[in-house]
Amino acid sequence: MKKCIFTLCLFLLPLWGGRVGLLYSIEKVESPSLNLTAYFDVQEGRPVYWLLHKGDTVIRPSHLGLTIRGEKGRTDFNDFGTKERPTEEVNGLLSGFVMTGSERFIHDSWWEPVWGEERRIHDSYHEMLITLTQPAKERYIQIQFRLYDDGLGFRYIFPQQKNLNYFVIEEEQTEFAMPGDITAYWIPGDYDTQEYEYTRSKLSEIRAIQENTNKANLSTTTFSTSGVQTPVLFKTNNGLWMNIHEAALVNYSCMHLNLEDNHVFTSHLTPDIDGTKGHIQTSATSPWRVIMVGETAKDILASRIVLNLNEPCKIEDTSWIKPMKYVGVWWEMIAGMRDWSYTWDFPSIHIGVTDYSKAKPHGRHGATTENVKRYIDFAAKYGFDGVLVEGWNIGWEDWFGNEKDFVYDFVTPYPDFDVEGIHDYAKSKGVKMIMHHETSGAIRNYERWLDTAYQFMRKYEYPAVKSGYVGNILPIGEHHYSQFMNNHYQYCLEKAAKYHLMVNAHEAVRPTGLCRTWPNLIGNESAQGTEYQAFGGSVPNHTTMLPFTRLIGGPMDYTPGIFENDIHKLNPNSHSWCNTTLCNQLSLYVTLYSPLQMAADLPENYERFRDAFQFIVDVPVEWDTVYYLEAEPYEYVTIARKQKDKNAWFIGSTNGYDPRTAMIDLSFLPAGQKYTATIYADAKDAHYRNNPQAYTITTKTVTSKSKLRLFTAAGGGCAIKIVPKQ
Amino acid sequence: MKKCIFTLCLFLLPLWGGRVGLLYSIEKVESPSLNLTAYFDVQEGRPVYWLLHKGDTVIRPSHLGLTIRGEKGRTDFNDFGTKERPTEEVNGLLSGFVMTGSERFIHDSWWEPVWGEERRIHDSYHEMLITLTQPAKERYIQIQFRLYDDGLGFRYIFPQQKNLNYFVIEEEQTEFAMPGDITAYWIPGDYDTQEYEYTRSKLSEIRAIQENTNKANLSTTTFSTSGVQTPVLFKTNNGLWMNIHEAALVNYSCMHLNLEDNHVFTSHLTPDIDGTKGHIQTSATSPWRVIMVGETAKDILASRIVLNLNEPCKIEDTSWIKPMKYVGVWWEMIAGMRDWSYTWDFPSIHIGVTDYSKAKPHGRHGATTENVKRYIDFAAKYGFDGVLVEGWNIGWEDWFGNEKDFVYDFVTPYPDFDVEGIHDYAKSKGVKMIMHHETSGAIRNYERWLDTAYQFMRKYEYPAVKSGYVGNILPIGEHHYSQFMNNHYQYCLEKAAKYHLMVNAHEAVRPTGLCRTWPNLIGNESAQGTEYQAFGGSVPNHTTMLPFTRLIGGPMDYTPGIFENDIHKLNPNSHSWCNTTLCNQLSLYVTLYSPLQMAADLPENYERFRDAFQFIVDVPVEWDTVYYLEAEPYEYVTIARKQKDKNAWFIGSTNGYDPRTAMIDLSFLPAGQKYTATIYADAKDAHYRNNPQAYTITTKTVTSKSKLRLFTAAGGGCAIKIVPKQ
Repeated sequence: MKKCIFTLCLFLLPLWGGRVGLLYSIEKVESPSLNLTAYFDVQEGRPVYWLLHKGDTVIRPSHLGLTIRGEKGRTDFNDFGTKERPTEEVNGLLSGFVMTGSERFIHDSWWEPVWGEERRIHDSYHEMLITLTQPAKERYIQIQFRLYDDGLGFRYIFPQQKNLNYFVIEEEQTEFAMPGDITAYWIPGDYDTQEYEYTRSKLSEIRAIQENTNKANLSTTTFSTSGVQTPVLFKTNNGLWMNIHEAALVNYSCMHLNLEDNHVFTSHLTPDIDGTKGHIQTSATSPWRVIMVGETAKDILASRIVLNLNEPCKIEDTSWIKPMKYVGVWWEMIAGMRDWSYTWDFPSIHIGVTDYSKAKPHGRHGATTENVKRYIDFAAKYGFDGVLVEGWNIGWEDWFGNEKDFVYDFVTPYPDFDVEGIHDYAKSKGVKMIMHHETSGAIRNYERWLDTAYQFMRKYEYPAVKSGYVGNILPIGEHHYSQFMNNHYQYCLEKAAKYHLMVNAHEAVRPTGLCRTWPNLIGNESAQGTEYQAFGGSVPNHTTMLPFTRLIGGPMDYTPGIFENDIHKLNPNSHSWCNTTLCNQLSLYVTLYSPLQMAADLPENYERFRDAFQFIVDVPVEWDTVYYLEAEPYEYVTIARKQKDKNAWFIGSTNGYDPRTAMIDLSFLPAGQKYTATIYADAKDAHYRNNPQAYTITTKTVTSKSKLRLFTAAGGGCAIKIVPKQ
Repeated sequence: MKKCIFTLCLFLLPLWGGRVGLLYSIEKVESPSLNLTAYFDVQEGRPVYWLLHKGDTVIRPSHLGLTIRGEKGRTDFNDFGTKERPTEEVNGLLSGFVMTGSERFIHDSWWEPVWGEERRIHDSYHEMLITLTQPAKERYIQIQFRLYDDGLGFRYIFPQQKNLNYFVIEEEQTEFAMPGDITAYWIPGDYDTQEYEYTRSKLSEIRAIQENTNKANLSTTTFSTSGVQTPVLFKTNNGLWMNIHEAALVNYSCMHLNLEDNHVFTSHLTPDIDGTKGHIQTSATSPWRVIMVGETAKDILASRIVLNLNEPCKIEDTSWIKPMKYVGVWWEMIAGMRDWSYTWDFPSIHIGVTDYSKAKPHGRHGATTENVKRYIDFAAKYGFDGVLVEGWNIGWEDWFGNEKDFVYDFVTPYPDFDVEGIHDYAKSKGVKMIMHHETSGAIRNYERWLDTAYQFMRKYEYPAVKSGYVGNILPIGEHHYSQFMNNHYQYCLEKAAKYHLMVNAHEAVRPTGLCRTWPNLIGNESAQGTEYQAFGGSVPNHTTMLPFTRLIGGPMDYTPGIFENDIHKLNPNSHSWCNTTLCNQLSLYVTLYSPLQMAADLPENYERFRDAFQFIVDVPVEWDTVYYLEAEPYEYVTIARKQKDKNAWFIGSTNGYDPRTAMIDLSFLPAGQKYTATIYADAKDAHYRNNPQAYTITTKTVTSKSKLRLFTAAGGGCAIKIVPKQ
């Protein structure tokens, strides 16, 4: 489907001889429906692009390029009979360019994801491929622009050539010059964590807000008070919505944005251990830099540009990749009711040496055979696919904070966790066990054990693993989002694919649509998840931000479903409070798309609210399509989805701070038929803090002409199941 | 055999309460034959030891201890009802100590190495175990002294305890206060290489010599102009010989020595990537710090203290560990006659992507099937056990200098290397192939491939691997001798043992007797090897130093046997010269003990000197015992060995700069019998530079009463084979 339609000017420098005075015009490319136009120019030797939406500037002229280690200042020409040429100012791959090629391609196709929000995805763009030559260095690079109706993607291409084989990035200097002092929805730039709450502010306020707010903890590594992470959402002063992110982050450093003067963001890569920003061997490409543009916030949700910019699926047989709804031995530990660890007998643990068989259990261990069987029973009773168990393997007594290398072996269970028995029991009940690999950031150790650990999973038929990277990375000095680490996550993912295992990596780099290429990447954390509700509580509107930001790159294992707000009831030492209503929790199963959805609360809390729990029992994890009904980031979001292969629709409306009435237009339903809607709604007096468990469950007959008006409380929401009327 | 004989004073601090004023005397321990006496004392809160040989001081009072990250300056007492106590000056594990225990043990045993210079080794020492408590920190450590007749070993023991679980070493501050301005035989301290030639100088001259000599190259990382590496040899002004090294370097950083004022060496550990010197989790021990003492230089050669201080063999079935004599496709590349690489077609190589099958060979590739078969034929003809082949696997075109991660996969051969065919051919000829794994310092990549690579070796029946670590280590900033890297070498070694594979690691940390515990560590480089004879030439007396220094820790794969001195004959672009006589090369098979001995020169050079080559054909790699006949480091060394299970003796005399007459007393031969000695000797006019290939081969009848006087030329030597007269 890829076709070169015309070539504007493809000049090859004649034997690199002499100073080349190329004539060129400003290059431009338009999106298929012509709503977006991207321009490219070389100005004073530097590449520049800008982006317009229906004539309005959304990205002002912005430089492109990279600085390279050891390549700064004036460059002598190579001695290829060109001695007469003077030295020339060339700074890495930042300047000294002339345009020597400009090609156009059109692409239009549909593809089917292994799992996703929709069964088919439309991939339609116009491409502009610019070739840029540095005569002084006798080398060239390319910049590939793909303009979709929902945004612009571009990336650097570094072709293999005599004078460009290996280089070390000092910094990528891609600019995103914003159209004025617009509104941003952002979290601070950080090399090691995305576990922040979002701030809505003007660009001009970002620095002061960060300077006056200290969110630093052991996990954070900020680099600038004007740094933000991607995906970052914007609303322009003309009412347009934008989101800047990256796609297909492979063998490259994770990009942050740093706000400079004049409302210009520049890319800021996560450093490797030596402070450099990435080692490149040509042929290579950067990830795609993506600027999503929409007239409504719903357009941002509907955009598939990040997936489209990723490579097609590289796994041939994907039959083993199956979305899962699961419960697990997890919230008990997060809430501080139980422990991951088993004993207090040892000052520290030496895996393979410490003898647990003689240790006295402290009695707080969560992952006991008995407790796990309780969850298996619960899962089987309510049709959950899987049971996650954390703290099953030895080493949790001193897993964190010691820069400890050999912290786990990933295969040795605690004495009270019967791997074989649990496997047999789960299997007899038709439930899959979900593996847990906390690495504690000790990368070398994890990679050393990886085959053994994955083989163990195969042996005991665990289809998926939740992996974790809590704490400082070993080798010391590496950051969670560096090229080195991104290569590690990719290594695990590809190896897992060989073993037919699904991966849900927590504390790893945030996703960039790689689940298209590697659909066994079934989930990621990479944002503030539900656990924070037990760590002091999240802000009530946190989940109204996630679909517009974090989820742009791929699904999140947010682990919703907390019915008991008062953590004190689970753990007398805790005074944490889950800042949502119960219906808000229900809504998240629809508004936060994920092929992996947990019901995170304790079985007894679900049994207490058995009627409301029915929505979690009913809600699927596989879908035919999606309808974005309402969207106001920071405030609320309402989404409807059609269950895969079934005539069943599920709606979630997630609300923020202010009580409101959701307007739910059911026109997406096939016309000419009656349906039964089961509506889980906040009671009128519900409130995330004072009355979170006040809800109503009502049944109503609806058609495609129905418009539901549903109250959603502060920190509230509603959830609806619709099926054809019997 | 370990028995506590008496306890001098074992005080336990009563509930850590109150300031403890312990009474103590100076502790001492004497070696079994009473020739050495070690003393210990705590002076102003700091541990101090000193060592006497028959009343003469060999180590003056020297401090012990370590500084710890984050533990400097005054320390507040913990709040265990001890608030009345003042703060106290405690600097890590360096000061603030009181002695709270002193125990004595006697040990006397014999053990049999899997391979070695002798069949049985005597392990006899007196031990003094000192317990040192820091009341201010409510914690304790121990220092374990083992006094042998041939030296002192001591190490730090860090027992697991409530207040000492994890710590990070800032620096080990072990002092070795030398007895005046004595003579040292040293190479510069370096974090990344031991490939230096030795200097003989007074201690007081070390700094000036290093300041005035620039030996820096891409491989070197020096840290101080008064730094030296161990094993380092000394001769005191009273004529005693000493050598300082370490034993059992496991999970710890490699120790160098830095000369401070007043002739005091202090330990200087190789830093990890973050500049710290090691992460310790208790229980733990440091390696042994070893001070060998002898009245003659021969005593240094005869000492087994480094092996004795290592743990017994941890491999149960050692039947697969077999010393080997081998040839290989190697010197051709070292000399620049052939290449490791295959083609010049590619600007750079992407393993798994670059398609070699279509590449044009440059015609200089050494590891071709044809050439390898030539070496197999040669090995079979002359009874060599193995054939090493370097450059057999793809990736050599750009293996070095690019901080490249995925530089090799260790399993994919070049198109002209037929793994299967070579395996079959070698097997049919009774020859084993020796694997080569150059890692290029990319540790993560090697560990990722290690199982696959070892499985490949098993499949094709390679019993041993020569591994290499050329270039800067990845992760960037790590050094070859850091704790991180030492753990890597150990990881490979132990994994290889599981696969029943022998390891010969080049550019790895120098050995510390670990071959006792892991006898599959069949060799190491870790010094300037024969390759330097093709890199410009080594000094003629280089090999007269190795037995007294580098070989103290374990065998070296020195790769002797160069018969053609003029490298120009192999490579027209080279003007390198091998600075030895041919007989010097023969002598090395005896004077440089190794279970792995190469005949490094080309087959055609051996055929040219077929008569002299017979010594290499005859010399074995397994021995019953050894006789050190003459020893003057820097000048000459003469050693005789009895072949294992055979009535055959081999003698080598290796000479340095000055021509001399070796005096070879054959009294080690069983008396009452006649023997035939085949003597390979320098001709009278031989000289390493002018006439290296001038030799005589004579046969003589000898008895145990014979004393041979043999001329050895400048850079010369002689070699003798003795068998019972027929």
